[in-house]
Amino acid sequence: MVVVMSPKATDEDVARVVDMVEDAGGEAFVSRGKHRTIIGLVGDTERFVALPLPGLPGVDELIRVGKPFKLVATESRPEPSEIPVGGTLISRRAVCVIAGPCAIETEEQALAAARTAKAAGAHILRGDAYKHRTSPYAFQGLAKRGLEILAEMRAETGLPVVTEVLHTTDVELVASYADILRIGARNMQNFQLLREVGKLHKPVMLKRGLSATIEEWLMAAEYIAQQGNQEIVLCERGIRTYEPMTRNTLDLSAVPLVHRLSHLPVIVDPSHASGRRELVAPLARAAVAVGADGIMVDIHPHPETALCDGPQALRSEEVGPLIADIAAVAQALGKPLAGHSHGLSAVGG
Amino acid sequence: MVVVMSPKATDEDVARVVDMVEDAGGEAFVSRGKHRTIIGLVGDTERFVALPLPGLPGVDELIRVGKPFKLVATESRPEPSEIPVGGTLISRRAVCVIAGPCAIETEEQALAAARTAKAAGAHILRGDAYKHRTSPYAFQGLAKRGLEILAEMRAETGLPVVTEVLHTTDVELVASYADILRIGARNMQNFQLLREVGKLHKPVMLKRGLSATIEEWLMAAEYIAQQGNQEIVLCERGIRTYEPMTRNTLDLSAVPLVHRLSHLPVIVDPSHASGRRELVAPLARAAVAVGADGIMVDIHPHPETALCDGPQALRSEEVGPLIADIAAVAQALGKPLAGHSHGLSAVGG
Amino acid sequence: MVVVMSPKATDEDVARVVDMVEDAGGEAFVSRGKHRTIIGLVGDTERFVALPLPGLPGVDELIRVGKPFKLVATESRPEPSEIPVGGTLISRRAVCVIAGPCAIETEEQALAAARTAKAAGAHILRGDAYKHRTSPYAFQGLAKRGLEILAEMRAETGLPVVTEVLHTTDVELVASYADILRIGARNMQNFQLLREVGKLHKPVMLKRGLSATIEEWLMAAEYIAQQGNQEIVLCERGIRTYEPMTRNTLDLSAVPLVHRLSHLPVIVDPSHASGRRELVAPLARAAVAVGADGIMVDIHPHPETALCDGPQALRSEEVGPLIADIAAVAQALGKPLAGHSHGLSAVGG
Amino acid sequence: MVVVMSPKATDEDVARVVDMVEDAGGEAFVSRGKHRTIIGLVGDTERFVALPLPGLPGVDELIRVGKPFKLVATESRPEPSEIPVGGTLISRRAVCVIAGPCAIETEEQALAAARTAKAAGAHILRGDAYKHRTSPYAFQGLAKRGLEILAEMRAETGLPVVTEVLHTTDVELVASYADILRIGARNMQNFQLLREVGKLHKPVMLKRGLSATIEEWLMAAEYIAQQGNQEIVLCERGIRTYEPMTRNTLDLSAVPLVHRLSHLPVIVDPSHASGRRELVAPLARAAVAVGADGIMVDIHPHPETALCDGPQALRSEEVGPLIADIAAVAQALGKPLAGHSHGLSAVGG
Repeated sequence: MVVVMSPKATDEDVARVVDMVEDAGGEAFVSRGKHRTIIGLVGDTERFVALPLPGLPGVDELIRVGKPFKLVATESRPEPSEIPVGGTLISRRAVCVIAGPCAIETEEQALAAARTAKAAGAHILRGDAYKHRTSPYAFQGLAKRGLEILAEMRAETGLPVVTEVLHTTDVELVASYADILRIGARNMQNFQLLREVGKLHKPVMLKRGLSATIEEWLMAAEYIAQQGNQEIVLCERGIRTYEPMTRNTLDLSAVPLVHRLSHLPVIVDPSHASGRRELVAPLARAAVAVGADGIMVDIHPHPETALCDGPQALRSEEVGPLIADIAAVAQALGKPLAGHSHGLSAVGG
Repeated sequence: MVVVMSPKATDEDVARVVDMVEDAGGEAFVSRGKHRTIIGLVGDTERFVALPLPGLPGVDELIRVGKPFKLVATESRPEPSEIPVGGTLISRRAVCVIAGPCAIETEEQALAAARTAKAAGAHILRGDAYKHRTSPYAFQGLAKRGLEILAEMRAETGLPVVTEVLHTTDVELVASYADILRIGARNMQNFQLLREVGKLHKPVMLKRGLSATIEEWLMAAEYIAQQGNQEIVLCERGIRTYEPMTRNTLDLSAVPLVHRLSHLPVIVDPSHASGRRELVAPLARAAVAVGADGIMVDIHPHPETALCDGPQALRSEEVGPLIADIAAVAQALGKPLAGHSHGLSAVGG
Repeated sequence: MVVVMSPKATDEDVARVVDMVEDAGGEAFVSRGKHRTIIGLVGDTERFVALPLPGLPGVDELIRVGKPFKLVATESRPEPSEIPVGGTLISRRAVCVIAGPCAIETEEQALAAARTAKAAGAHILRGDAYKHRTSPYAFQGLAKRGLEILAEMRAETGLPVVTEVLHTTDVELVASYADILRIGARNMQNFQLLREVGKLHKPVMLKRGLSATIEEWLMAAEYIAQQGNQEIVLCERGIRTYEPMTRNTLDLSAVPLVHRLSHLPVIVDPSHASGRRELVAPLARAAVAVGADGIMVDIHPHPETALCDGPQALRSEEVGPLIADIAAVAQALGKPLAGHSHGLSAVGG
Repeated sequence: MVVVMSPKATDEDVARVVDMVEDAGGEAFVSRGKHRTIIGLVGDTERFVALPLPGLPGVDELIRVGKPFKLVATESRPEPSEIPVGGTLISRRAVCVIAGPCAIETEEQALAAARTAKAAGAHILRGDAYKHRTSPYAFQGLAKRGLEILAEMRAETGLPVVTEVLHTTDVELVASYADILRIGARNMQNFQLLREVGKLHKPVMLKRGLSATIEEWLMAAEYIAQQGNQEIVLCERGIRTYEPMTRNTLDLSAVPLVHRLSHLPVIVDPSHASGRRELVAPLARAAVAVGADGIMVDIHPHPETALCDGPQALRSEEVGPLIADIAAVAQALGKPLAGHSHGLSAVGG
């Protein structure tokens, strides 16, 4: 941590900072410049952050050096994390494909999408029973009935499933059905929910908030990790910008940055980022090329009748070519598609 | 609603849209242009939104005309809403001042801030027992003990109190202490929480989300109103932009826009918007000049020792002059400061 | 300046930085922390910036302390600048009103707007002969004929005039007609143009770029000042954000920030910021309340036939009440409207 | 175009719109809804845009259907444009690599970078003699001497060169040295400069502005095309967002969107987008995977001593592996690297 003093700070102002730091068990190194003095603090940053330094007379600015996250930081683990989901691993060694309906609307629609995903080579199925909608008048999901259909998708295909948990009160129920729970973008800073899933012994996928910085995203993961659950998969899904042609702007730089800053794997959701079917395949290819550990895409057997996000869902016949394309890119870059699970472990047992 | 057909749409494509709209009880007016055809839909917009129009062949775009919110819309009420909080009214007829500590840290700190606020002429006290913090390692609030101190602030000053409710599980408890509950910016789209406070018979202050559009903010209010609670006060607190010199960019245009679009009152929080003490007074004056129905500011007896957001808290001696200034602006524009309550109604009784 | 070393930096890496700084005539103070070492540099920051420090082994980050602008910085002048325009002063002691047509379309339209502005009490007239349009198919201005009409506006009202200069090749011509030249938002970083107006002995108004930080804006002013012309008036006109209800988001925090960082005066343009007539008056009042040294508004005798930005132009009958309102706010805050000029100095003489 | 009438519009208001449209040679189709009437306009959109419709009584909103650009639009050309630069083609059929120093600093530095680029397989060299710098105190380029060194780079390698033209006064000089001129992001809406390069018989690369929408970017290209020069290559280089870890946020969705909207080729500059060396290779791979027609990267023989943008320049030994990687991705997706030129055409002759 560095304390930048104001040009008008007096010797007493400087001494006051030094005393406070030393009282807290730290060391303070003073550099007196022509225009201003800066003080380098050496010791326990967390203790320094708690000190009332910002309001002291003569103090202009505090600059934090280093990053505030700990458990999810690269430094805390020698090797990248590998997260087992059913029989598949989400890891930096291979590219994982997650596919399925955005919302589970009917048994028929959901199973059709699940079969398409399986046939095309997906590793994990998605399908939501609880939907987060901007309007209270929009379709909000089938709730428990949706989870039952999810279980059918799982049983029929043998693939593990990911589904969103919206509310703290649903965590237990959703966890009894899901192989991996998803925290949506709008809930990225719902810290109560993060703490609840942090208590589970089950993987969690954490989507980046609509206007979250990468640092805030990793701090949200830290909330989960702090409760004891470090089986976290990050998911980049676009950030809010001024550009109106896409729903959000996919920030692919986040992938290599997360790989440097954290040991967690990171996947990309091009469907929700763009909101446009025709952009899903090119962005999925780009995600794999930038180094993502997986992609997640929406599929709908009849997108034109979808109750939620139809314009972004891939048609059944588009899924196979997309996976073939990303397999080719993955292969070219020496990080192949993930292998497939051989049998599911029991869920909710 | 307007359906814009693709330049390549066939007569059949157009007929399919017309049929679907008529089947849903609406009328469809077709305008054939040189380059493309557009179809105007007349009838119940909500039914049209639910139709699978976006995915139909030949359909390029759906343009919604009008606004999606209903209960909170200007059209639904002949007169602007006036929200009683303790003995004060939050309304478009007068400017209300809310002041107090950001977080309740100790009894002494909170009561000192409450006395300062009362002496300077504030109408409502603020003070939080539950804090939403980006880092799990930061101070998270005193919880129940904080609410007890809040009750002391109320008892000693006779002023009503506003405090944040973070979690659905705390709604009942917080409501038993607060005269008005606050939903924070990060929870603006925590729809479960919105529904819970929508069931209360108690006013709710709804802060604008960090990256929420004005329309999304009003839709969040709609979630509350839909449960039966229309005693809602909106609070603008800045939006996330690229400018690094302030924590957020205060969007004062939101005030007159909300006044046009909705019957709800809207106040402004310059403390959290800017994150800088020296900007609070000028932005508070601007908020009143733009037509805000109130302001909310942080006070701390010793900002340099604050456990949360110290750099933005006003010092005790700054509160009186700020209120004098906004009273002068309010007076000059013919919308005076609000009157004061004469005795509190019982809370939690 | 502070050099933050990587956690893996060696003693040699640190020594290399120290040597380079000392060779450049500076001093380097080393603070060795448990996790990393930071080095405080004391001496001439400009020289340090030019050093190849960022690429040296073991160097993680360079943190600049202090601001990069000089001539326009508060520190460079004991008193705030006051800029004479015709017989009016733009300064922090009074509020100046600039009004007139966005574009000069016809002699009749421009003179009508000028008379309205004069009658309502404006101090300076605006009117553009050259327009910056996103589309090459839109009205681009009357060019020289527009400047001649501007001269008529000036002659008839006796008020000084501000007009935009778009191209370097027009600087001389525009300067022979204008009392103060304006650099538009899209040209804020057209450094060739900034240098050209920097060579004039005539005031310049510099609008903030659409996505410029406050620091970049002041650096653009520095380009002008560096050529010898320090008669600069800054103009905040909104920044680009994700909110679609206004053309841009007016950033009123910029006004008190500029007042702290620089000695230059700063005015606000609510017409171009919002793009909506009904927001102009409330935002103009807010601008004065936040401390702006003036406002600039568009007027059109028949906004419904305007060739450019009609939806934001005030109608004739709206100008008087707006100026009365801001006069009341200005009065209430102890900074009155500016006085009026008594006769113009010759232009272009 | 669609005219949305206010809920309070009268029959007369509607009739007035219809008359005005018919007088302008168009047709107006009226759809009367329960809440409001909408009017579909059929005919010449450009004429409708010029009508004073937005200010008419009862008119709420005008919604433009379709896109405002023409010459650069997909509809105006049956086949995608292919732009010859030296002996190379920039086209949708192959991936072109542009590499070289950001700024030309010395003959030695520039030639070293040119040789590295050539050896690694680049098709076109970059190198700037004129630099656009936020600070007037930063290195501004070698000007004419820089162009002479550029000519040496070209002569020694036999590769064509791209260089930025900053000012209208330099267009002729720069064009006499460059095979393709570049318009920088800050100049994207310098319409005078766009018009000047539009008069040349030489390709132009147009970078997207820092906060330009895709539509504004294509409208800027339209300015060039309208002057007769349609040899335009678009270049995506990141947009300004709130995320501080990268200089800008690379918007790769822009690539497939441009391919749908326009016949022009589009390349990607990951060096300036990210500002960080370690992100250049992953983003370059992603650019190729998303379908870009080329990439442009900065190289510096000694990035740690660079006078401009050193932290983003690739080291010499990083260039070959990057090009090998993108060749593999390109190959995997069936769009190979571009072929190489066999001899340069004369420049400036």
